[in-house]
Amino acid sequence: MKFKINAKSNGNMKTEVKARNFNIIVDEPESLGGSNEGATPTELVLASLAGCYTVVGNVVAREMGFNLKGLDIEIEGEMNPARFAGNSRDERAGFQSIDIIIKADSDADSKTLKEWVASIEDRCPVTDNLTNETPLNIRLS
Amino acid sequence: MKFKINAKSNGNMKTEVKARNFNIIVDEPESLGGSNEGATPTELVLASLAGCYTVVGNVVAREMGFNLKGLDIEIEGEMNPARFAGNSRDERAGFQSIDIIIKADSDADSKTLKEWVASIEDRCPVTDNLTNETPLNIRLS
Repeated sequence: MKFKINAKSNGNMKTEVKARNFNIIVDEPESLGGSNEGATPTELVLASLAGCYTVVGNVVAREMGFNLKGLDIEIEGEMNPARFAGNSRDERAGFQSIDIIIKADSDADSKTLKEWVASIEDRCPVTDNLTNETPLNIRLS
Repeated sequence: MKFKINAKSNGNMKTEVKARNFNIIVDEPESLGGSNEGATPTELVLASLAGCYTVVGNVVAREMGFNLKGLDIEIEGEMNPARFAGNSRDERAGFQSIDIIIKADSDADSKTLKEWVASIEDRCPVTDNLTNETPLNIRLS
């Protein structure tokens, strides 16, 4: 199963991404040199994680036979911007950890919901790519 | 530096994410049970990587003293959907690797551009979170 995107930018921080027929604007706030026309790359990572939890959460709830009426997910991550800014290589560039709070609107009991979360963690592609190492092959054309 | 998003869904695969004042719709194609109103979680991961390359690429080009007029980035990833679908745990759930092709519109020579790419790889937060392990702390509320 292949996924592909194309991205264009014009000498500034705003990126126009095409994924199939969808256009996604990625940008930075003006305080960081962008034009603030879209979410930042790091916000998008958290958004993709929330989307993945929703998709897998619905699939797993159906398999487990309980009714999932809705989901509220809050995700937060902290990073030290020193490496990104080129000031220090002491700490990693990205999120040091990511906190996720899930509120499920469902009649399932607490034991069932714990199993449900464990199954999401095991099966969510975005979780896998964040919690494990993934090689990037970069080529200049 | 903290980043935070809130996400809501109503018993289906479509997620409405709020990141500051931005709304992002994450969904799945109809063939996978969604309503196809937005990019998939995995497409968003690739979009965030492209956005990160653009942001860091512009910062680093300025530091290195060359003019980056534009960037075209193509990103592709492949995954085996068996684990996501609950059919097999033999392979990982997410992208096994990610291929990135960067076309820089610039007068910088090839040696300079190679250094530039190496610096992006070192400083891009999204690259860090994909290529290294990041702990997720999940709590049911």
